[in-house]
Amino acid sequence: MALKKKKNEKKLPIRKVAILTSGGDAPGMNSAIRAIVKAAMWKGLEPYLVYEGYKGLTEGNIKPASNVNVDRFINQGGTFIYSARYPEFKDEKVRLKAKKQLDKMGIEALIVIGGDGSYHGAQLLHTIGVRTIGLPGTIDNDISSSDYTIGFFSALETIVQNVDRIRDTSRSHHRCMIVEVMGRFAGDLATHSGIATGAELIITSEKKYSIKEIIDIVDQQMNKNKKESMIIVVAEHLYDNLDKIAKEIEQKTNVVTRSIVLSQVQRGGAPTGFERYVATQMGTYAIELLCENKSGLAIGFVRNQLVAEPILEALTKPRPKYLEITEKYSKINQE
Amino acid sequence: MALKKKKNEKKLPIRKVAILTSGGDAPGMNSAIRAIVKAAMWKGLEPYLVYEGYKGLTEGNIKPASNVNVDRFINQGGTFIYSARYPEFKDEKVRLKAKKQLDKMGIEALIVIGGDGSYHGAQLLHTIGVRTIGLPGTIDNDISSSDYTIGFFSALETIVQNVDRIRDTSRSHHRCMIVEVMGRFAGDLATHSGIATGAELIITSEKKYSIKEIIDIVDQQMNKNKKESMIIVVAEHLYDNLDKIAKEIEQKTNVVTRSIVLSQVQRGGAPTGFERYVATQMGTYAIELLCENKSGLAIGFVRNQLVAEPILEALTKPRPKYLEITEKYSKINQE
Amino acid sequence: MALKKKKNEKKLPIRKVAILTSGGDAPGMNSAIRAIVKAAMWKGLEPYLVYEGYKGLTEGNIKPASNVNVDRFINQGGTFIYSARYPEFKDEKVRLKAKKQLDKMGIEALIVIGGDGSYHGAQLLHTIGVRTIGLPGTIDNDISSSDYTIGFFSALETIVQNVDRIRDTSRSHHRCMIVEVMGRFAGDLATHSGIATGAELIITSEKKYSIKEIIDIVDQQMNKNKKESMIIVVAEHLYDNLDKIAKEIEQKTNVVTRSIVLSQVQRGGAPTGFERYVATQMGTYAIELLCENKSGLAIGFVRNQLVAEPILEALTKPRPKYLEITEKYSKINQE
Amino acid sequence: MALKKKKNEKKLPIRKVAILTSGGDAPGMNSAIRAIVKAAMWKGLEPYLVYEGYKGLTEGNIKPASNVNVDRFINQGGTFIYSARYPEFKDEKVRLKAKKQLDKMGIEALIVIGGDGSYHGAQLLHTIGVRTIGLPGTIDNDISSSDYTIGFFSALETIVQNVDRIRDTSRSHHRCMIVEVMGRFAGDLATHSGIATGAELIITSEKKYSIKEIIDIVDQQMNKNKKESMIIVVAEHLYDNLDKIAKEIEQKTNVVTRSIVLSQVQRGGAPTGFERYVATQMGTYAIELLCENKSGLAIGFVRNQLVAEPILEALTKPRPKYLEITEKYSKINQE
Repeated sequence: MALKKKKNEKKLPIRKVAILTSGGDAPGMNSAIRAIVKAAMWKGLEPYLVYEGYKGLTEGNIKPASNVNVDRFINQGGTFIYSARYPEFKDEKVRLKAKKQLDKMGIEALIVIGGDGSYHGAQLLHTIGVRTIGLPGTIDNDISSSDYTIGFFSALETIVQNVDRIRDTSRSHHRCMIVEVMGRFAGDLATHSGIATGAELIITSEKKYSIKEIIDIVDQQMNKNKKESMIIVVAEHLYDNLDKIAKEIEQKTNVVTRSIVLSQVQRGGAPTGFERYVATQMGTYAIELLCENKSGLAIGFVRNQLVAEPILEALTKPRPKYLEITEKYSKINQE
Repeated sequence: MALKKKKNEKKLPIRKVAILTSGGDAPGMNSAIRAIVKAAMWKGLEPYLVYEGYKGLTEGNIKPASNVNVDRFINQGGTFIYSARYPEFKDEKVRLKAKKQLDKMGIEALIVIGGDGSYHGAQLLHTIGVRTIGLPGTIDNDISSSDYTIGFFSALETIVQNVDRIRDTSRSHHRCMIVEVMGRFAGDLATHSGIATGAELIITSEKKYSIKEIIDIVDQQMNKNKKESMIIVVAEHLYDNLDKIAKEIEQKTNVVTRSIVLSQVQRGGAPTGFERYVATQMGTYAIELLCENKSGLAIGFVRNQLVAEPILEALTKPRPKYLEITEKYSKINQE
Repeated sequence: MALKKKKNEKKLPIRKVAILTSGGDAPGMNSAIRAIVKAAMWKGLEPYLVYEGYKGLTEGNIKPASNVNVDRFINQGGTFIYSARYPEFKDEKVRLKAKKQLDKMGIEALIVIGGDGSYHGAQLLHTIGVRTIGLPGTIDNDISSSDYTIGFFSALETIVQNVDRIRDTSRSHHRCMIVEVMGRFAGDLATHSGIATGAELIITSEKKYSIKEIIDIVDQQMNKNKKESMIIVVAEHLYDNLDKIAKEIEQKTNVVTRSIVLSQVQRGGAPTGFERYVATQMGTYAIELLCENKSGLAIGFVRNQLVAEPILEALTKPRPKYLEITEKYSKINQE
Repeated sequence: MALKKKKNEKKLPIRKVAILTSGGDAPGMNSAIRAIVKAAMWKGLEPYLVYEGYKGLTEGNIKPASNVNVDRFINQGGTFIYSARYPEFKDEKVRLKAKKQLDKMGIEALIVIGGDGSYHGAQLLHTIGVRTIGLPGTIDNDISSSDYTIGFFSALETIVQNVDRIRDTSRSHHRCMIVEVMGRFAGDLATHSGIATGAELIITSEKKYSIKEIIDIVDQQMNKNKKESMIIVVAEHLYDNLDKIAKEIEQKTNVVTRSIVLSQVQRGGAPTGFERYVATQMGTYAIELLCENKSGLAIGFVRNQLVAEPILEALTKPRPKYLEITEKYSKINQE
């Protein structure tokens, strides 16, 4: 992947572009990095990789992408350029130091893949003269400027595969299984996975069921309606101790009940094909925007199309409400 | 799943609804059937299953869904109510006989899951008084009234998983691999899978490359640019004998070249979680439309939202063009 | 699958055979049931299904297998004839009642798929005149009469897939991840999955590391040796509160550490092909043994061959020791 | 993974060891390479990677493994050190040149992962003074000194996953599907996958069915016995044109019949956990044997245990016969 002199090179507003990932890792981040590197070369830009997120940026952990076989990462989970927490980046002096690292290497633009916090960093760099583009990268799908974020599709599949397994045991033993899924404070993963797996109860922060309400539903399903199995999908951060709740359900209903916290298995894993399709296009679009002299924009996949809007706006949009469909499908799945 | 008397039952415009699948099987058909059966019961309707598509309909192969454990099929490939070719349905007398079968059982509405041909049948039944709703079910994604059809997402994953495997061998041996994927006359599967797998050349019917052109690209990639590997994704129905083309490429470039026709592995398999999410909502929406006294409509998933429009319109919309992105990503992937 | 009169039928020592599953469900149980049903028919026997394990047996929940499409279950997780705990079966009166249920239907033989406890039941039935054959069915691999049990191969893959995902996140963030896997009191799943995933520390009951020892290894790996990532695989029942241990490791080493209890995802899921290969042969062999007038035997897959031995002996064999290889591979993986 | 001075280093018979892969790529080769590299370092040896098989060996394409992050490859398909055909290695002058390359770098030992042909090369190097160990690496399982070869388990799963998909379509449309699987001249993949998928007919080179015989079985199954579906698994190299045979079956039986050649999808893909477990142990054992001053040995996994024997003997053992079980399971699956 040696860099070739492209005919149109002199027309480009920038010559060098760097990429970093920030926040929790998400499947498809690597697909996006690969696409950015390759689209940059296709346009005649020199791509650089920033290792360890904003921390690495500030410390100058920046290397040319040309030495890396990025194609190998198209279907790999995680982020091969690493990610790191770095609250120090809120300090302006730190950000100026980061800018200096880029200046020193002649890098005019930075593409940031991450969530809300990462977008804030990108916006602040934009205001001090670094051209920045943000890509939504998080399994939680909680960036309101995009219908879907990089990582969401794959995390959904990971959850669904595991809930399918749990369903097998629930059925074989007529047990009730409570499964806690990620999503930070957003109900997207719970709602999508609950519908996809036919969960008899889907609980998100929009309506936190009391233990009494849950017990009544379990009793109705398993004791009165004699259902073969029952799955409850719960978004994280709602109940302190699911294990204790499971025990209480079991005591009151006599239905053997177990709780499973899917936890850290949800963030890794190979990105799905559709994830890679979306991530590749987002990454390419970031390069195209920079070549059109744009900066300070967040890319989204909205109503099935690529869009870009000011990062500040991306951060303040309302998020979709799911309560109506979680209630509806909980009821349908109880039939 | 015994049928319960629902309070609102008397208000409903229909009492009984049947479901059939027609055309090639597609992952997610079973998820949609399950959703229809359960949504029907939730609304207080009696669901029936028509076995073997329009053929079974005409022959009266119709049974109550209440005896089937539909939940087991939420994640199963194929269609458990079977599908069949039945050109006889173009004959009006045959259709009248089909209608009689429904009348005899008091079934007022029919939900058809399938492709273009299936939609035609549904439209014709609608004109003779059967309330019909069409759901787009085909891996080919070639129904223009929906951005995505039931089956497309899963077939995409099946292709991508297999191309990833082929990539391993291509890399290990520096071979060129030509992979033919399905899609009938639509390039959707080729385009999406080509982008998702980083295919160095994506060929659809919008631009059929000559063998000479292909050879030049292989030579450039593998001999001049010394790339590790090369994948060419080709839509079906474009070249008569890929094996012969592979041999010609090998002769002219000295790059070992193999062709693989993915063929019938693309249509089966478990539906992905996202497929199940979409199919479940489409199926439920079909029941909701019937309960709103609608008929003759085709359901779509357009710009990320459920829509319904007259079947006749669904059949005549233009399809998206992919040439621009297949060309663009072929070039980016060649970097 | 209507039962055909076979020429050799009159020679058989039995005419009817029943199957039950007992204990925790395991992938491959369904493949074994299917094989038993089909092998029975091939031999000219009438197969019956006992639903809900020994409980269903005692209550007479026994139905002809000929009405079930067993082929559909060859690749399905769980057990479609259900399993149940039933300590009452230790009572001889209960067992005599169970025998009466079989006698009433003219069923002379019973094949039991399950673990230790299930084998005890089978042995006791054997002593009161029911011909019994035991098949090792448990993900834990803790039946010493077989190198591998039905379910072990598939559970291993489920664990490995999930640990691979966890590795992605461990790498992306340089975190230490502690993963608790099943196995009851056997270290087989921990050892196999730890080696397969390159775990830097594998802990089974053969050597329970102190928290201090674990902290030292984490510190060596992540702080002194600057490794990219670290996975600790721990067998269940060893530590009370992994979450607390993770926090302590983090405090002492400054390495972000998380614990994940894979829990109930390990028991369900589609059986692997190899599992199905083994389970199918075990099931078939059970029928062949009954046709040879054998009873009271446990089937094993030992040194890559099918074997059968008296159930009593199966229950008392020593189990393999893993300490040497868990220690060795922990060290190799720390390189 | 910097090389550390180990206390016991001076006692070792060798100091440097190289690894190469040869022949068709197979899942698990990378896991074995990783294990060899890490086990070498654990023992205090310096590991080297030979790129491009015997060709690279002869040309001196040999690099220290210490610069490669081998852990990343534990679950990757293919071989990251590449493989190549190199018939020139039959020439003694070429082999002497290869030995010189090793001598020049002070490398005393070579571990070869591959099939029959690769073993021959290893044996010949052994005779001219290079210490060699052979590991069985091929999906075909056709190395008689090992019950299972590296790659076989994973290829089996790839086939089974794809045949399961094909089964869905076969069922949905009552079609007969002929699936050709790899195995060179060995029936192992056909036999194992045929049993695992319940194929109604399994054909290997031990008994090539005539088209007439196949037609009779299809007619019996689909027309007379009214089976839902039918799968025929055929080993490669038996029939010239399966497509033509499918057409003939369809003409004679009126059962829609399709043929699928799984082809190159079978060789790539992530190794299964069990594959990685076996490959890791084989790789480690190779290092242990070299440290015990052994050479000219082939490693096997026989009756569930690691063994080593002279390469020459490995090449001449008889292979297992499958005819009895392919016939038996074809019949059982036809029930």
